[in-house]
Amino acid sequence: MSIESKLKSLGITLPSVPGPFGAYVPAKRSGGLVFVAGQLPMKDGKLLATGQVPSRCTIDAAKSAARQCVINALAAVRTAEPDLDRIAGVIRVGAFVSSDASFTEQPNVANGASEFLLELFGDAGRHARAAVGVNTLPLDAAVEVEFVFELR
Amino acid sequence: MSIESKLKSLGITLPSVPGPFGAYVPAKRSGGLVFVAGQLPMKDGKLLATGQVPSRCTIDAAKSAARQCVINALAAVRTAEPDLDRIAGVIRVGAFVSSDASFTEQPNVANGASEFLLELFGDAGRHARAAVGVNTLPLDAAVEVEFVFELR
Amino acid sequence: MSIESKLKSLGITLPSVPGPFGAYVPAKRSGGLVFVAGQLPMKDGKLLATGQVPSRCTIDAAKSAARQCVINALAAVRTAEPDLDRIAGVIRVGAFVSSDASFTEQPNVANGASEFLLELFGDAGRHARAAVGVNTLPLDAAVEVEFVFELR
Repeated sequence: MSIESKLKSLGITLPSVPGPFGAYVPAKRSGGLVFVAGQLPMKDGKLLATGQVPSRCTIDAAKSAARQCVINALAAVRTAEPDLDRIAGVIRVGAFVSSDASFTEQPNVANGASEFLLELFGDAGRHARAAVGVNTLPLDAAVEVEFVFELR
Repeated sequence: MSIESKLKSLGITLPSVPGPFGAYVPAKRSGGLVFVAGQLPMKDGKLLATGQVPSRCTIDAAKSAARQCVINALAAVRTAEPDLDRIAGVIRVGAFVSSDASFTEQPNVANGASEFLLELFGDAGRHARAAVGVNTLPLDAAVEVEFVFELR
Repeated sequence: MSIESKLKSLGITLPSVPGPFGAYVPAKRSGGLVFVAGQLPMKDGKLLATGQVPSRCTIDAAKSAARQCVINALAAVRTAEPDLDRIAGVIRVGAFVSSDASFTEQPNVANGASEFLLELFGDAGRHARAAVGVNTLPLDAAVEVEFVFELR
């Protein structure tokens, strides 16, 4: 099944990413790679999850938010390559989790992105990943995720 | 206008980056990409901005410091490719901002780098970017920025 | 000397990295590059160093742990390219150091990885590097290091 069909079957409509863009862009292509900017879990103009995990945001909420970052990343890829079926695979995921200093389950949060990529792309969705804690993120987001995709 | 001319017109002289280098280097080339090491806002041997934003460093000072990281990055590129006019564009910027846990305007700080890249390279300077907060940085720098450039 | 021989001469046996893997993988290849997932300093199933530096972990312990991340990274590369002698060089190292907010010697910790790469690969082991502090890491690890290797 194509990615476009798969998203449709899941009831997911990618958000539009209207330009013009500023000094940085949602996605930048270099050869066969697309580097996607760090995505926040925005949905309909609002963050799905804010604050440090777990004192201000549950692990489950942050994990769901990481999934939303994937949706936003695919919308970002479209600004560089309109046909998402040209995505050959996912190369790298960098997940930053807003964390209390005692929180050490960042991989659990990052799985919200990783598992969804596997669901969408199958084997080709498997990727190298770095998941780390940080003390704060832009707009107080609970999670920020960046991506490198490979095109065919 | 060439980058070299543009830098001159802005009154900017790139610092020299004298070797020999240690185990890590200012910039490493792989095919048409140049990966630039995380740059601190050093100028004339001193950091332009130190400490967490905003309790110990203003947003404006950190933003100016991020601009200096670009200058240092170009000097770093030169160690891998002496002719900066061979830079075709900027692919990725990773900005780490030393932050109080309640500070959430990292993009504003990172714009100090991004906007300067746009000024220097025009459209080709637009890049994918991740901007995150961290609780501390090397030498107590207020910001550290890494880069991936593309050569023509 | 080949890398395999060099590791043997140092008495280092790479750990096995048994699959099956989940949504993310130890290493992912894209063209001539291998992106290695963020490595924790695991040895024989246990972390060599945990906690923020320096209040809960000494700089020396964290530096040794960063060296272990290189060993684990080479084991990870093998899952994507079984012949380590096909490694042409190291392109990028990203080092995250679990840090007290007042700790600013992350480069010293990261040198544990960088110096070992230089020892193993000689000149080709020199790499671009970002070293930053973070307030916490997965499993309370003292350090996490990710890598980009280039194959010949």
